[in-house]
Amino acid sequence: MLERIRIVLIGTSHPGNIGGVARAMHNMGLADLALVAPRCDVITQDSISRASGADHLLHQATVHATLEEAVADCTLAVGASARSRTLPWPMISPRELAERLPGECQPENARVALVFGREDSGLTNAELQRCHAHVHIPTNADFSSLNLAAAVQVVAYECRMAWLSQADAPQVADDNDERATHEELERYFEHLERTLIAIEFHDPAQPRQLMARLRRLYLRARPEKMEMNILRGILSATEKSAKKSGTGSVNQENADKSA
Amino acid sequence: MLERIRIVLIGTSHPGNIGGVARAMHNMGLADLALVAPRCDVITQDSISRASGADHLLHQATVHATLEEAVADCTLAVGASARSRTLPWPMISPRELAERLPGECQPENARVALVFGREDSGLTNAELQRCHAHVHIPTNADFSSLNLAAAVQVVAYECRMAWLSQADAPQVADDNDERATHEELERYFEHLERTLIAIEFHDPAQPRQLMARLRRLYLRARPEKMEMNILRGILSATEKSAKKSGTGSVNQENADKSA
Repeated sequence: MLERIRIVLIGTSHPGNIGGVARAMHNMGLADLALVAPRCDVITQDSISRASGADHLLHQATVHATLEEAVADCTLAVGASARSRTLPWPMISPRELAERLPGECQPENARVALVFGREDSGLTNAELQRCHAHVHIPTNADFSSLNLAAAVQVVAYECRMAWLSQADAPQVADDNDERATHEELERYFEHLERTLIAIEFHDPAQPRQLMARLRRLYLRARPEKMEMNILRGILSATEKSAKKSGTGSVNQENADKSA
Repeated sequence: MLERIRIVLIGTSHPGNIGGVARAMHNMGLADLALVAPRCDVITQDSISRASGADHLLHQATVHATLEEAVADCTLAVGASARSRTLPWPMISPRELAERLPGECQPENARVALVFGREDSGLTNAELQRCHAHVHIPTNADFSSLNLAAAVQVVAYECRMAWLSQADAPQVADDNDERATHEELERYFEHLERTLIAIEFHDPAQPRQLMARLRRLYLRARPEKMEMNILRGILSATEKSAKKSGTGSVNQENADKSA
């Protein structure tokens, strides 16, 4: 899917921004960059520095005289627009765009162009009217002008999220270790209560909801087996230390019986 | 909601990146910027130029010596992480973070810190272990290092999307009591470590990731103030009991000094 998405930049003035766009694209797995009538050199020290390792995208980029030429083979063109225009156009958010992308990219010949305008003046009305829809990044109304690379970053991020949400996307493995079982948790709570009695923190005759509160806390944390072992180890060390001091020795005896 | 979200940058080297972050924040309606031990000047021609009209955020930014200081009043801290670490931590995507934000930001004292690391090396393990969760921007596995301002842009965009979706969504009342602050949690971890030394469970010379594992467990549980008081009470009772027995008396002395 991502290989069918092209980023089109029209009339860019700053090589650094082209470099920043290349970096943002490569970070999100996009590779097809088309430049329409750039107002600066493409390969400069600044663009290579901002590309930060994604400069192969600059070298591969196609350069075109007009928007028409850059999107000639595209099945969908979406133009980035900060403003509402005199002539209303279908306006979608980057998220709505992302929801449409898997379907749009499915046909063999599918090619989607995401078109971004000049740093100072965006896309002209004529350019916007060559797009099927306009994508508007929701910004602070008092400060709506995004940096070009930042705008591409947001839209490319939504493209990647859409790609990841597809069934065939590589899944991120669950990094949790095995959770403790119900039984292991219950044994822990028994051990905890014995220990709290041994150190004279807990009096079962006056429970004050203590064990209920501790249960809620530890159940919320969903402990792993390994964590459970650490917590049990701490209780054993606490008991041993309490035993030496003779604190709560009567309770300790009961504890040894039930252990 | 957005006014309760703080962007924290640690050890930034390039003024331009701080400016780019200010612009991205202001574009998305965020205003609270905290800088921890910046490795460059904050107000320079480059930072003001990249801020592109958002330079009031640079002037308002707070500067701190340590991460602890910058997030002391925060009820949730989330650290940006590109890598999976030796000790896995709860890892969420920017979208999952966004889903949690409306609820997290609801309490009166809520303050959410989104923490970003150095351009060259990110956050240290110690810094990551001070965070409740890690946010990972899903990037191209072959080219995962995002520009700092681009990373903030993506996360700030998700914050704004969550805020916008909240305006028309009914809110579920938060039935949690007040959460412990970062500072209260850090005091707990100090007390916990002292106590584990006193009962001879923990040897700082051979840490075996013990404190990191306990941090991860308790941060995951998001303790309330009341629960924190119970856990501190248990530690005090344990110390008292250990003192009577004379276990770890030397460490106990140090503990009393620092308490």
